[in-house]
Amino acid sequence: MPRYKLLIQYDGTNFAGWQVQPTHMTIQEMLETNASRILGEPIKMTGSGRTDAGVHAKGQVAHFDTERSIDLARFLDSLNGLLPHEIRVLKAEEASPDFHALFSAKGKVYHYHISLDRYRSPFQRHFTTHVRHRIDLDKLKEAARCFVGTHDFTSFANSANEGAAAKCAIRTIKRIDVVEEPGGVRLEFEGNGFLYKMVRNITGMLLDVARGKRELAEIEKILRAKDRRLASKAAPAQGLILVEVFY
Amino acid sequence: MPRYKLLIQYDGTNFAGWQVQPTHMTIQEMLETNASRILGEPIKMTGSGRTDAGVHAKGQVAHFDTERSIDLARFLDSLNGLLPHEIRVLKAEEASPDFHALFSAKGKVYHYHISLDRYRSPFQRHFTTHVRHRIDLDKLKEAARCFVGTHDFTSFANSANEGAAAKCAIRTIKRIDVVEEPGGVRLEFEGNGFLYKMVRNITGMLLDVARGKRELAEIEKILRAKDRRLASKAAPAQGLILVEVFY
Repeated sequence: MPRYKLLIQYDGTNFAGWQVQPTHMTIQEMLETNASRILGEPIKMTGSGRTDAGVHAKGQVAHFDTERSIDLARFLDSLNGLLPHEIRVLKAEEASPDFHALFSAKGKVYHYHISLDRYRSPFQRHFTTHVRHRIDLDKLKEAARCFVGTHDFTSFANSANEGAAAKCAIRTIKRIDVVEEPGGVRLEFEGNGFLYKMVRNITGMLLDVARGKRELAEIEKILRAKDRRLASKAAPAQGLILVEVFY
Repeated sequence: MPRYKLLIQYDGTNFAGWQVQPTHMTIQEMLETNASRILGEPIKMTGSGRTDAGVHAKGQVAHFDTERSIDLARFLDSLNGLLPHEIRVLKAEEASPDFHALFSAKGKVYHYHISLDRYRSPFQRHFTTHVRHRIDLDKLKEAARCFVGTHDFTSFANSANEGAAAKCAIRTIKRIDVVEEPGGVRLEFEGNGFLYKMVRNITGMLLDVARGKRELAEIEKILRAKDRRLASKAAPAQGLILVEVFY
């Protein structure tokens, strides 16, 4: 049975996240419903991981199986024709049968955008978190470095998990770059995998340190304590974008 | 009576344009309602010109008069606190009594964004017009040059006019630059003033020439004919942004 791999972008503002839910509209459901309509059989999409309500994607990846052989160019045109403009499938290709969007993923890049303007641009309102406290950028960078490397991230993960891979909380963060951009900064996270809400939880902690609400030295202790309750609250969903999945 | 000048940004997607209308929500109305609430007296806003439903602004300018002397920093905070996130007032300053947002304007810059990707990014859906025809960029640039200079733009203006200044249809376009950007191009219009729907009408014509639907030589003739019916249809509102007003 052929397996197909999709590259997907979405503005998550109006969706209840990636994963199908009984009562809310989700990205996965929109893709499944419309692919099923085109292919005339029930299609199940497996994503590289869920994204929460309000989180965006520039490079989400999913796979699905079908008995039928697909004319991929026509399929893409039809799928994008049926999908709302908030979701675009940029690429579709045949994948090997042992490719798995979730389990084959070797790494991911997330960006978290922070607006530091006193009055945030209307054009950034769905794609940034607005921070009006004074932020110390050097402290932000220093705090970010504390998370880089291999750690047990239990203190920065929420309980819901992304399938089997999440049972162990040890992950490696390759880099957290603090990049200045017009109106604010973005945090670029690259790692071999991220636990549920891990990027937002780390960002919440980084912002608390950068504004002087928490101490830099706490990060090390909180990581060691493996207790979610000790760390800062998660930063809001809207600043977060899944940028790339590596296989 | 002190006069105040405001610098305003808005995402026009969910508004029926700038100008107050009895049945639809407009930018002007949101500003007037909330400024009136703060100042405790009816406030009338005069913009540098109206923008249509779906058109955006990064640099709209308006003025208003009030008997009260205003603490401008507090006023800005309050106003932005009350306004929806789609509208931000970036600056407020006292203006001389003979400053007039519409009549003192010496020039304007508009950008028109065109997505040329086969599948348009979800993040650009409200801020670009999606053109899926093949576009000849050299032709687009050549056509743009035909509009630069001083012309009678009757053929590229719709009948509604922006107050007294629009009774004469002679305008000077200083430049129409075609600038490539990720996923497409933007047209940068700079001129001493633009008639009602003039930027969108010119853009519609430029796109028709660039895709080979109309001939380059027609532009000259249509300008001379002073007949709106001869020119192309207006390009959609959503690609248009009022970027700057010069005084």
